[in-house]
Amino acid sequence: MIRAGIVGATGYAGAELVRILTGHPEVDVTMLVSRQYSGVAFDTVYPAFKGVVDATCQALDVDRICDQTDVVFLALPHKIPMSIVPQLISRGKKVIDLSADFRIKDAAIYERHYQPHTAADLLSKAVYGLCEVFSEQIQAANLIGNPGCYPTSVLLPLIPLIQQNLIDIQSIIADAKSGVSGAGRSPSLGIHICEVSESFKAYKVASHRHNPEIDEVLSTVSSDPVHITFVPHLVPMNRGMLTTIYCTLSKDVDDQKIDNCLNSYYKDRNFVRVLSGDQLPETRFVRGTNFCDIGFRIDKQRLILISAIDNLVKGAAGQAVQNMNLMLGFDEVAGLDTMPYPV
Amino acid sequence: MIRAGIVGATGYAGAELVRILTGHPEVDVTMLVSRQYSGVAFDTVYPAFKGVVDATCQALDVDRICDQTDVVFLALPHKIPMSIVPQLISRGKKVIDLSADFRIKDAAIYERHYQPHTAADLLSKAVYGLCEVFSEQIQAANLIGNPGCYPTSVLLPLIPLIQQNLIDIQSIIADAKSGVSGAGRSPSLGIHICEVSESFKAYKVASHRHNPEIDEVLSTVSSDPVHITFVPHLVPMNRGMLTTIYCTLSKDVDDQKIDNCLNSYYKDRNFVRVLSGDQLPETRFVRGTNFCDIGFRIDKQRLILISAIDNLVKGAAGQAVQNMNLMLGFDEVAGLDTMPYPV
Amino acid sequence: MIRAGIVGATGYAGAELVRILTGHPEVDVTMLVSRQYSGVAFDTVYPAFKGVVDATCQALDVDRICDQTDVVFLALPHKIPMSIVPQLISRGKKVIDLSADFRIKDAAIYERHYQPHTAADLLSKAVYGLCEVFSEQIQAANLIGNPGCYPTSVLLPLIPLIQQNLIDIQSIIADAKSGVSGAGRSPSLGIHICEVSESFKAYKVASHRHNPEIDEVLSTVSSDPVHITFVPHLVPMNRGMLTTIYCTLSKDVDDQKIDNCLNSYYKDRNFVRVLSGDQLPETRFVRGTNFCDIGFRIDKQRLILISAIDNLVKGAAGQAVQNMNLMLGFDEVAGLDTMPYPV
Amino acid sequence: MIRAGIVGATGYAGAELVRILTGHPEVDVTMLVSRQYSGVAFDTVYPAFKGVVDATCQALDVDRICDQTDVVFLALPHKIPMSIVPQLISRGKKVIDLSADFRIKDAAIYERHYQPHTAADLLSKAVYGLCEVFSEQIQAANLIGNPGCYPTSVLLPLIPLIQQNLIDIQSIIADAKSGVSGAGRSPSLGIHICEVSESFKAYKVASHRHNPEIDEVLSTVSSDPVHITFVPHLVPMNRGMLTTIYCTLSKDVDDQKIDNCLNSYYKDRNFVRVLSGDQLPETRFVRGTNFCDIGFRIDKQRLILISAIDNLVKGAAGQAVQNMNLMLGFDEVAGLDTMPYPV
Repeated sequence: MIRAGIVGATGYAGAELVRILTGHPEVDVTMLVSRQYSGVAFDTVYPAFKGVVDATCQALDVDRICDQTDVVFLALPHKIPMSIVPQLISRGKKVIDLSADFRIKDAAIYERHYQPHTAADLLSKAVYGLCEVFSEQIQAANLIGNPGCYPTSVLLPLIPLIQQNLIDIQSIIADAKSGVSGAGRSPSLGIHICEVSESFKAYKVASHRHNPEIDEVLSTVSSDPVHITFVPHLVPMNRGMLTTIYCTLSKDVDDQKIDNCLNSYYKDRNFVRVLSGDQLPETRFVRGTNFCDIGFRIDKQRLILISAIDNLVKGAAGQAVQNMNLMLGFDEVAGLDTMPYPV
Repeated sequence: MIRAGIVGATGYAGAELVRILTGHPEVDVTMLVSRQYSGVAFDTVYPAFKGVVDATCQALDVDRICDQTDVVFLALPHKIPMSIVPQLISRGKKVIDLSADFRIKDAAIYERHYQPHTAADLLSKAVYGLCEVFSEQIQAANLIGNPGCYPTSVLLPLIPLIQQNLIDIQSIIADAKSGVSGAGRSPSLGIHICEVSESFKAYKVASHRHNPEIDEVLSTVSSDPVHITFVPHLVPMNRGMLTTIYCTLSKDVDDQKIDNCLNSYYKDRNFVRVLSGDQLPETRFVRGTNFCDIGFRIDKQRLILISAIDNLVKGAAGQAVQNMNLMLGFDEVAGLDTMPYPV
Repeated sequence: MIRAGIVGATGYAGAELVRILTGHPEVDVTMLVSRQYSGVAFDTVYPAFKGVVDATCQALDVDRICDQTDVVFLALPHKIPMSIVPQLISRGKKVIDLSADFRIKDAAIYERHYQPHTAADLLSKAVYGLCEVFSEQIQAANLIGNPGCYPTSVLLPLIPLIQQNLIDIQSIIADAKSGVSGAGRSPSLGIHICEVSESFKAYKVASHRHNPEIDEVLSTVSSDPVHITFVPHLVPMNRGMLTTIYCTLSKDVDDQKIDNCLNSYYKDRNFVRVLSGDQLPETRFVRGTNFCDIGFRIDKQRLILISAIDNLVKGAAGQAVQNMNLMLGFDEVAGLDTMPYPV
Repeated sequence: MIRAGIVGATGYAGAELVRILTGHPEVDVTMLVSRQYSGVAFDTVYPAFKGVVDATCQALDVDRICDQTDVVFLALPHKIPMSIVPQLISRGKKVIDLSADFRIKDAAIYERHYQPHTAADLLSKAVYGLCEVFSEQIQAANLIGNPGCYPTSVLLPLIPLIQQNLIDIQSIIADAKSGVSGAGRSPSLGIHICEVSESFKAYKVASHRHNPEIDEVLSTVSSDPVHITFVPHLVPMNRGMLTTIYCTLSKDVDDQKIDNCLNSYYKDRNFVRVLSGDQLPETRFVRGTNFCDIGFRIDKQRLILISAIDNLVKGAAGQAVQNMNLMLGFDEVAGLDTMPYPV
């Protein structure tokens, strides 16, 4: 059994890692780290786990993490990971970082949108953990920058089409809608149920930090630099993300070509379901699972792609575990083949 | 006092008309018609109105409507209005129809998306009741085709910009999100709380009947025919609609020009609020009111417009009453100046 | 016109006072006080009021309040009101305090559940503002302790029955359920939508501070001291409160006697609706209104009373305005006769 | 592997059985029966299961069920099971019926609340499947009447206390609150999201069919006949049930005795968690799991018990599988040890 540590175990992504890794057949969760709840039983913070997870949260101590784990999941706010990852890597640990610190290759772009990067030398060694696209590099990696939730929902439908030149890369617009758990667990007026429920809004319009992350990845799979227009919205629900993408079709591209492209790209992948016929994605169909569902429609020369993921699973903890599975040579679906809920 | 009749009073739009017109200072609601609840007290169907509205729903009888009302609101499924409107008009009634039957000028377009039109001769006399745009024609009208909720949310932000050639009319995409009351009150699996809450989906992608309605109106204010890409989505909330519109700016158009255009177009209008600075629309800010809030952002050469309305008020019953106010020379805000709710 | 000040205008109860008083025909809202948002436009805090309320929040300054208002509504956390009410009263202002500071007559009870009382001499002059029960005293009062939301929902159904000895006062259990706005607007984990929605819980079981408030009032209308068992619960909704009360019927009391008692007690009251036949209260039927709906059923010798109010209206701001109406001789329904919403 | 059939697989309880049994290590789901969706792929009805469950719903044909299954789960409306269970039992099948048809021992009581019973001879052979209480009988049973969701939430906290005479059995009141999935999947106005969300109500007050079921079971574990007052309420959420039970303590019973009684009764049970200290049940802590959480508080001589279950799991499908595990000698937690979700 591999020994796994979860740092930031009491945030929503961290707790989701606890859920998934506790049920993983190849993993012993040997360490839960929480700066806020150090010394507190995990099932006091999340009483759902009473009788299921019997562990006490520990303070963040890199030496102890190195002693007690083989693979480390970091579910921390950006800036903290870059301060501890170098030591973890130098001690031979496999690291999967769910923050933005190791997602962006170009340190200048990172620094423009976040803050100075203190471990920029590791950026070239880090692999962007979009499993269906970069699986080969992931298998050889020691450090994964686990993709953001919005980028995952935008990139999976687009990359196959861009690689085959089926769409105009200057025309891409992504209108994304997320459940509120994506905002994290820290209290603020913005997550007050009375300010969120029975309402809908856009936020960080064309200024979200996931926009440069998306642009950089799309630019690597395209012949030219790509900038997409990206507008996130907040849905009054806990989990789930649905993204509607608009772009212009290349000449002579029809339904059939899009369908073939997506299906052939994803035909052997466990977690991408290309929908056909009347079906379109809904977030409830992927709730609690690592699936990304993709559907599309064509309106004259315009392609409309729709993707749905669970922002905490394929958009965070699930993809992180999928990355670990690839890195360690486990079955890609190990720990992730839980049943969906009908309601 | 004007005598008003509400036909289809027990659907959501009809009941909203009951709410607004009961509080209207110039109106006596003299007749509530409900095919389903004929003979039943209105406050049995909507117990919220116990002690507030004391009326019994009546069967649909055109002669009695003509005898007992001066102005008639039709909140019925399309197809029924076209069968009774000719008689109402010939008897000199003012008619505001909330269905699609008198919204579309071109009978062929109507028939392609709905069914054969049996009162097509009235189409040329009907006025499209988008109050801020067609107020002059509305004042002179006897028959109003009250705009759909989605068209209202799409047209109000776009029309001023199109009239001033600030955007490329071939580039328009409207990604719209609606609360569930827009689906009406009839039970179906699609409105089951367990199938809708905690989920988000697109539906009728590029195939919604409001698309040709939008296209026709935009084409009348533009030099060339317009077709927009329109994708509606369902939000797990009762009321509210937010639409995010994407289009390409014309050459040399900047923030200031957009701001000026919208503000000058709407500066004397009671119900359109153009937001500035950091503010962006959220549906809760217009809940229960007749306001349409509009905000925008620019992303390089692309304009992002965001509008919010209450689908049952500015998107249906409120605009219908606003139309009546204009037709009858009342103060435009009469009955519509209720306070918003903070929560 | 009477000049009204609202202190604590940006909390949920305060903002609801802004909503109601702005629409009140006899009132000019001359002052909004907010400690947190002093100097900020009210419509920046609540953008729903853009174009509706044009006022800037002010700091808490008792002299200015005295200069600019005739009646003062205090929507503040307990402890603050007792520090400013003596001065307001001595300057001849009418004061309606929505906190607990002037609700409880017995200072010892107050101090056991809250903190030392620094204005205990005013307790005997304060009137408990349960309008349907103490209207005479309210008309003569200068200082109102506006009832808590839970006490309002418990007391209105019980008091008529206790006064007529129809129930065993030792047997009373109140199982109450409230929407989340009752928890106030300050962010905390407890109001995070992800921790509240799709869940239901009891809290402060038999230890809520509204319990002694209820007990004291019931004891004054009864021959003997009363202690009820009171358990509040949190419902994943914004507004509304439904309370289910269980008690043992006195000998020979039947449906008819209960019905007669409630109906005769409330027959001339504007805001209590005693339901009959098949009807039972639901919180949506009173949403946004000052109504208290009451229904009941009998199970052998046990009476089940059910009441519904909007916790922010009849449970707070609405009843506060009703108190003002009584104190100042206005029509009791002035400002409170807004239409309910069907959805 | 045991061959299991699920009859009524497309209702919410049936689909939950599909979820649990598909993940069960000892079970092959060999047959899904749906009268409404016969001939339709299960993943068309529940697209969440695309790529997970590959089966087509079949018509209800008892012979085929007998040929293809060893154990049969019936998730059908009452009345239908009694027409097919005799044949299934005579053919040697193990049957777990989730309807009310085999829960009540006294046919007269059943017939008073439901309809004539056409298989009353089987009632004496059927075992009431409350696993923690009747496990011995369940192990020997061929036919299980799987308990209702409300009875499960009421009986588990009460039975240990009644058996030890710690409470007055004449004093019991159960105030229960359920998510909407308990109402089933058939569309009706009562489950329309606009009629349910943002509201709270009681229904079938002291007249719910689960009341006689509860009374009969409590009477069997008590020395005297028991009738409890039972009031169900509807919570605007999909899943979950919380029940607050009030009763009078017997003489000299204190916190410690209640705590000891519950803990000793449930100490070896996998699915009942007796909470201690500050903890109280919330439905989200048991969501998606087979747990029943129990907490309590004492208010003078009155005991307040609070239980929480997932109405579709411990209240339906989960307990049904737990019954199968007991009947067939499997590990009691097989298929039911899935991880809870943190959000």
